[in-house]
Amino acid sequence: MITVRTIAELRTAVRRLRQEAEQQSGRAEVGLVPTMGYLHEGHASLLRQAKEQCAVTVLSIFVNPIQFGPNEDLAQYPRDEERDLKLAASLGIDIVFLPAPEEMYPQPTKTAIHVREVTEPLCGASRPGHFDGVTTVVAKLFHIVKPDRAYFGMKDAQQVAVIQQMVDDLNFDVVLMPCPIVREADGLALSSRNVYLSGEERGQALGLSRSLRMAEEWLGQEPGLTAEEVKSRIRQVIGEAPLADIDYIDILTFPALQALPSAEPVVNAGSDVLIALAVRFGRTRLIDNRLFSRQGGCLCSVK
Amino acid sequence: MITVRTIAELRTAVRRLRQEAEQQSGRAEVGLVPTMGYLHEGHASLLRQAKEQCAVTVLSIFVNPIQFGPNEDLAQYPRDEERDLKLAASLGIDIVFLPAPEEMYPQPTKTAIHVREVTEPLCGASRPGHFDGVTTVVAKLFHIVKPDRAYFGMKDAQQVAVIQQMVDDLNFDVVLMPCPIVREADGLALSSRNVYLSGEERGQALGLSRSLRMAEEWLGQEPGLTAEEVKSRIRQVIGEAPLADIDYIDILTFPALQALPSAEPVVNAGSDVLIALAVRFGRTRLIDNRLFSRQGGCLCSVK
Repeated sequence: MITVRTIAELRTAVRRLRQEAEQQSGRAEVGLVPTMGYLHEGHASLLRQAKEQCAVTVLSIFVNPIQFGPNEDLAQYPRDEERDLKLAASLGIDIVFLPAPEEMYPQPTKTAIHVREVTEPLCGASRPGHFDGVTTVVAKLFHIVKPDRAYFGMKDAQQVAVIQQMVDDLNFDVVLMPCPIVREADGLALSSRNVYLSGEERGQALGLSRSLRMAEEWLGQEPGLTAEEVKSRIRQVIGEAPLADIDYIDILTFPALQALPSAEPVVNAGSDVLIALAVRFGRTRLIDNRLFSRQGGCLCSVK
Repeated sequence: MITVRTIAELRTAVRRLRQEAEQQSGRAEVGLVPTMGYLHEGHASLLRQAKEQCAVTVLSIFVNPIQFGPNEDLAQYPRDEERDLKLAASLGIDIVFLPAPEEMYPQPTKTAIHVREVTEPLCGASRPGHFDGVTTVVAKLFHIVKPDRAYFGMKDAQQVAVIQQMVDDLNFDVVLMPCPIVREADGLALSSRNVYLSGEERGQALGLSRSLRMAEEWLGQEPGLTAEEVKSRIRQVIGEAPLADIDYIDILTFPALQALPSAEPVVNAGSDVLIALAVRFGRTRLIDNRLFSRQGGCLCSVK
């Protein structure tokens, strides 16, 4: 495994491994898994899929300062480089890119990529500027690594929608590979931020995944339910936890992230439907979601 | 010469010619000359330099709607595809890319690239949104063509500064090659828009290049001159033409495009200095500029 900290070394390493792969097998796809580190089984699932599909797999670990707001958890964001490198090595990753902030931003960036509309609801409303930071750093990583495929977890479903929009609009020659949410046995979606939770908060946070599972049942059994009705039921389930401070509960089309007609049943939506939540427990903000896809006459949860 | 109108055909053609060049000579640089067509000798000089330095030269011709304001000359912008293709063929260009607007923007783009600061003075102040349109389309072309070098004329000096800032900030793996302004024998900077000028306007427009030449003499002979003094003299020279309607006359550092200290002599500037003009003649807006570089103790015009 090659571990590099500079852009120049990374470019050289990718070029060399790509050439070697071409010569050996004629197959030379490069896969990129961009992360902020403190890797968990969700990241591992992305890395395994990249490894399976690509000749060269690059893992980037970079806590990107420009996607954090002034009152967010940039300084506290959990880091454990040693453990991350061990996990990467155990998965057979080819290259790990660990740039310092000064390597990625030698000067404060004057250039920002802004995606409109898809960035406006959900986390975009709660975290102004967040997605500009995400699209800007992802564009930088795409230009540095030049991957053929890039792997993103569907826990950040809006991030997937935003990056796909950027890729389409700017003609990036990269295929996005959204991968399913990985959960603990009790349903909690894996997140590096789970480490912040107290035992009590963690117990109460199970309401997020439980309410999403219940929403699936409701939609299956009561096809007349509107988005407002489903949201109100989810609010009730999550609200049972006294420590839960709901940021948003929303039901939108996917990937356009547009509101559903308020009087129409959710199951009549003309496209895939995303139910997405953000809830604070103390100083920790958790997100979770479930994507429903039209199959025949019904909306089924996408596994 | 390969002429293509779709992104898919272009990608295929570039890939094929790049591979062929690699096999033949081990040299496989791709050069891109992005233009809006109606080619003149200025464009030809870019194409010749690309051809000399690169194994594969791509000319793109696209009148990019999103860089025109609502009251600008998008509909009237001069076009002559047949003549452009003849010129490209005579120069030995490998690939010409002539996309329709629907090919570049199948949907209205939701993604924009914005560069701050460098875009704010000069044409950025007169043409709000113009540079967002430029950076966005140039990023698209860079992603489609994947050039090693891209050639831009210094007549659009601010455009060069803005694109260089974007390339640096977003880590595009492309080298910008700014090329000198090409002028008519009488000094008029070549521009596709010159075709709009009446004979009388064209005669009076010579004040632009003349005032820039005079500025060079003034700076050489009177090293105490401040930016305000030089601007005021240029204003006087251009103002002698009754049809001239001055948009801006400015003196800024290059490439940061920052104001010079108002009381300091221009020749004391700690970096290169750009004198830039925009002047309307009737409905035609012309720009011109001269770049001065520090060499030893003096500011010399960059040829």
